[in-house]
Parts: sequence; structure tokens; C-alpha cells
Amino acid sequence: MTRTSALAEQFGELKIDALLVSALPNIRYLSGFTGSNGLLLVTPAGSTLFTDSRYTIQAAEQTRGQAKVKIVPGPLAAAAAPVIASRRLKRVGFEAGRMLYDSWQRLKETAPLGIALRPIGNVVEQMRMVKSEEEIGLIRQAVLTNSKAFEAALRRIRPNATEADIAAELEYQMRRHGAEKASFDTIVAAGTRTALPHASPGNERLKNDQLLLIDMGATREGYASDMTRMLFAGKPGRRVRSMYNAVLEAQLAAIDTVREGAAAGAVDRAARLTLKRAGLDKAFVHSTGHGLGLEIHEPPRLGAKDKTRLRAGMTITIEPGAYIEAFGGVRIEDTVLVTANGCEVLTPTSKELAIL
Amino acid sequence: MTRTSALAEQFGELKIDALLVSALPNIRYLSGFTGSNGLLLVTPAGSTLFTDSRYTIQAAEQTRGQAKVKIVPGPLAAAAAPVIASRRLKRVGFEAGRMLYDSWQRLKETAPLGIALRPIGNVVEQMRMVKSEEEIGLIRQAVLTNSKAFEAALRRIRPNATEADIAAELEYQMRRHGAEKASFDTIVAAGTRTALPHASPGNERLKNDQLLLIDMGATREGYASDMTRMLFAGKPGRRVRSMYNAVLEAQLAAIDTVREGAAAGAVDRAARLTLKRAGLDKAFVHSTGHGLGLEIHEPPRLGAKDKTRLRAGMTITIEPGAYIEAFGGVRIEDTVLVTANGCEVLTPTSKELAIL
Repeated sequence: MTRTSALAEQFGELKIDALLVSALPNIRYLSGFTGSNGLLLVTPAGSTLFTDSRYTIQAAEQTRGQAKVKIVPGPLAAAAAPVIASRRLKRVGFEAGRMLYDSWQRLKETAPLGIALRPIGNVVEQMRMVKSEEEIGLIRQAVLTNSKAFEAALRRIRPNATEADIAAELEYQMRRHGAEKASFDTIVAAGTRTALPHASPGNERLKNDQLLLIDMGATREGYASDMTRMLFAGKPGRRVRSMYNAVLEAQLAAIDTVREGAAAGAVDRAARLTLKRAGLDKAFVHSTGHGLGLEIHEPPRLGAKDKTRLRAGMTITIEPGAYIEAFGGVRIEDTVLVTANGCEVLTPTSKELAIL
Repeated sequence: MTRTSALAEQFGELKIDALLVSALPNIRYLSGFTGSNGLLLVTPAGSTLFTDSRYTIQAAEQTRGQAKVKIVPGPLAAAAAPVIASRRLKRVGFEAGRMLYDSWQRLKETAPLGIALRPIGNVVEQMRMVKSEEEIGLIRQAVLTNSKAFEAALRRIRPNATEADIAAELEYQMRRHGAEKASFDTIVAAGTRTALPHASPGNERLKNDQLLLIDMGATREGYASDMTRMLFAGKPGRRVRSMYNAVLEAQLAAIDTVREGAAAGAVDRAARLTLKRAGLDKAFVHSTGHGLGLEIHEPPRLGAKDKTRLRAGMTITIEPGAYIEAFGGVRIEDTVLVTANGCEVLTPTSKELAIL
């Protein structure tokens, strides 16, 4: 069964006759199209992709057999209306969390009389949570590319390098090892800047007796990886070591709880409890992880209140951290595959605190 | 006058008491905050930035004095409601082209009784069209980084390199020359793949007697550049040369029309007319250019129907192209600053067809 027909099988329950898919990763998942402008109308009888003339050739190549392509000038939402009318579709769903207010307005204004537009939740993202064997293969490749690039870049990091230099080297090595791009803006933070969970690499230089945080991801054929490792220039003192060990223990405790059927919230709680015993629970300012695949952040979210049950075939990150302003932060992150009896940590990179 | 007070001065005309800004580049422009999750409530009395706990330290540092920061769990739109109520704001605008349908829904559901939510057009983007001296300085830097990286990478391109290798080298050199990142996914296309205006670099190797298209941008302190250049491996034949010359002529004709007061559509028509004389108007499948700054695509759009009048201080691209399936494509693109009497082509790179 194709992905679009699996999606269309849910239309009865969703009380719709068709779904307008506006999120680009969802369009890629359902049709193969990778362009930057698209709208996909999915009906039980087949799909239509709307895009612009920059993509005439590419869209035809990529969607071969999976969708009809319509090249349109101007807003795509307006172009969907005549197709909806001609197919006599009555209840048309749209992705409420992915469609902009004004696209919805345009749709409403141009839609034929008598059409009901229905806001629909993240049904395609729900389908995407559990990966196929082929998708898992691509994610494995992305993870290996990530780790190899990390090692190759590490050999080239010189003391006194700036965060930006290190990020440049990491991204170059990802490309050299087969990534089509970085999965997100590489995070490199030195010294007290490690206390910023999402620091942009700047002109800060790596000095002696400093922590270095690297959070990186490699994309292969659209699929992402995600890894965070910590390094230390020199000999880490007691406070750094105890903070590092506490976060590592939390990460391992979280990994221990991952298996088919476990609640996402339980994984988060395992990490949080461990950090609490080290007095670091208040320093853990984000959730324990997230799904990843065609996007770097996908459902499920591994947060305290998340009730999603993990399923075999999900790919997630496990990445607890602790951040103390004016001192520094530690985060350790792997990409993990959920299995029936536990999980497989895909990231092969050592989790010992690397000494530069 | 600060940017937020200049914005608030328009509230009377827009018939609103406050504006909820959800587009991240607009939030950066108005508050300095660069995080990946934010919502900014702008009122004449001051601004409030909503974000999550990953950004507690960063948001305080970046917005110093420009906005109050509220760290909230969960959806930001829901957190805005109590602030709206406590400030007794009655008519609250939101960015219709930037807010997702479900954020608007959440806002509507949580907003205090008696509040009118008003869809507002791209007012912040309109402000951002004309750049300050400081912004122009950053764009100049981004353009120079871009050109230097192109030259450095060119010296390292070997025959038989893949598109992906070349993209890796270009992005590495951008970083080495001071870019914090590429402004967009670098486009490298070899041979007949140049006929795809937005090709992703793949494993295609640069062979003899082939065209190579490179479309790249460097970001410095948030500001983008954009440049496309063509190369040829070997000695170009008559058809390639005449296509190249026609596109170059169109690009120069378009540049010739750029000045304060010119209509964006007139610039596009100049390029299109020139290509028509070469029989290539149907092969020119996109518009002539776009504004750029904090985003790689900003208003104005230089398309046939665009009536925007150019103003001194706008930074735009001029990038006509021609694409012929199974043969190849040519695009030539500069970043250009509009001035009172004409324009300044910021991109210093030669526009002769480079021979490899």
C-alpha cells in the first residue's frame, strides 16, 4: 500500500474527502517532491501537486506516478479551488498546524460554495513517526556520517580555534562524508557559553580549562541525525566532572527506559530524576528528546507531560543537559532507534568526556 | 526613534492597539532576539517577548532594554492572552501571512472576551525593505565574504569533482571567510542539471564540455547575500555562448533600470524583453529578483506584475535565467543596492563565463 492510500484510509474517521497537505516534509513523504514551494491535494483517487514554474522539470521527475503535477502562477492555495470543485470534493481537510492563516483565508475565499474546510491535526506526522526499514537505513547512514565527520573534525581542532572555525570544519567534514547538508545550524559553544543550550557559533576562542559543546546533525537523502558531545581543553576540575557524570548517568537512565510501549513522559522522568539526585533538576531546562527523520524535530516529544507510547521503528534523540549561568553547561545526545525489547543507540561515538 | 516605536506609529492607521509578531526575522529585527521559538507583543508602551526556557539567558542578553522577556512553557500564543488582558488591549493585530492557523485558533480561544483579533499584512517586512546604513554595511560584508569564498573554492575545484564536493568546498570557504552560515542550501548543478533552477547538489560529476551553475549566499550577523555564476569545463560551443550572452545582456538591462522610483515590474520587463529578442523568453521561468536582508527572500519581488516602487536603500537580487530541458540552463545573479540615481552592484565577481 502506498503512503497516500494509507493516509486516505483515515479519511472516513477524519470525516473528510480530501486533505490539503502544506508542510513540505509531509509533501516529500507522500509524493517525493523536494522543492521549496508546494501544496499537495490527497484524495482516495490520487494526488495533485501544485507548485511553480521553477520546479516544472524537477516535480515531474520526483513525483513520477505518485502525483499529478500542476504548475501554477501565484498563490498555490487559490489554484487548488478549481480542482476541488471539479472533483466534487465536499469536505476538505487542511493541516491546521502547518497552514498559514492567510493561506487558509485564501482557500476559504476561493473554495467553491458548499465546501467545508476542516482543520486536521498532525496525521501525516503521526504516520511518519514509525520509520520503514528504508528510512531507518537512511537515518543509520546519517548518524554514521555525523560521527565520522565529528572524529575527522576533532583531529583538526587546534587550541585557540574560534567556535565558528570549529563549526566550519564540522560542516565541511559532514559534506565530505556524504551529507547533503547539516540537519540544522551546528551549535558550537565554548566556556561559559555552553550554558546557552542553543548558542550560535561566534568568535569566542577555545581556551585552556574550558568546556566545549558540539551539537551537530547530518542529513542524507532528506533524513537527519542529531548528536551532542562535550570536550574539555585541559584537565577538568571536580565541578565539571561531577556535572558531566550526572548528565551522562541521566542519559543512560533515559536510554534504559526506552522500549516499545514505554510512555515518552516516562523516559523524560528517568532523566529528570537522575539529575535531581545530583541537585541539577532545575538546571535541566528542556525536554529529554524528540523524534527525528525528514525533520530534525518531529513527534514524539520526550517531555514530562507527553503520553505518546513509544513504538518499534521510532527514531528519537535522548539528550538531557544541565546549564548553569556564568559557569557552563553539559549536554549528551544520541540518536536512538526504538525496538520491541528496548532500543538501539545508533550513535557510535564514545561518551567519555573528550580531552583536547 | 526605535524600530518598535516606528512600528507602533502605524497602529492608528492599522486600527490596532498592539501587534503580535510571530515571524522570527521580524522578531529579530524588532527585539534583537535570534532564538528559534518566539512571539513578540508590540504595544506603544513597549514590547514583551515570549519564549521558552532554552533561551532564558540568551533572550535576556539579546533584548536588553528592547523588550521584556517572559519564559513560558507550552504554546506561546496561549501565554500572550493574560498579558493582553492585563494591558487592556482591545484590538490586537497578528501577522496573517506568518501565523499558523492553529496558533490563531489558540489565540482566539484564549483571548479575553471583547478582544478583536485583526489580520495584518506584512507591515514589518515593509519596514525592513529599506535598509539602514548599518544593515547595508552587514550586507556588503556578506556579499564580499560570498565572492571571496567563491574565488577560494574555485581554485580548489578539480575536474571530476561531484556537485556535492563543490558545494562542500563553497560552504567551507564561506565559513572561513567569516560567514556564520550559508544563507540557503547552496545550489550546484552540472551539465543538463543546470536546467533545474533549484537543483540540490548530488553525486553528478563535473565532466568536460559541461556547464556548471553555482548559486550561493553567505550570512553575516543575520544578513544574507546571493550570487549565481556559471562556469564551463572546456571550450563552450556556440549555443552555450549565445545563451550565456543573452542572459548576461538581460541581467545588465535589468540593472540599468534599477533606481529609486522605478517599478519592480519594469525591472523584470527589461530582462524579459531582452531574452525575448534572443528567443528565450519562454525559457525564463522565474522572476528577475527579490529583496534580501535578514531573509534570503523578502519583499519586493521583481516580477512582471509587481507595482512596488524601488526606494534608495533597498537591497535586491537581479537574476534572470534561461532553462532548456535536456540541454541546460544559465543564470547570472548579483546583489544590488538601490540608490537615488541608479544602483550599486555590490557583487564584485566577474561576470565573464568562467572557464575551468
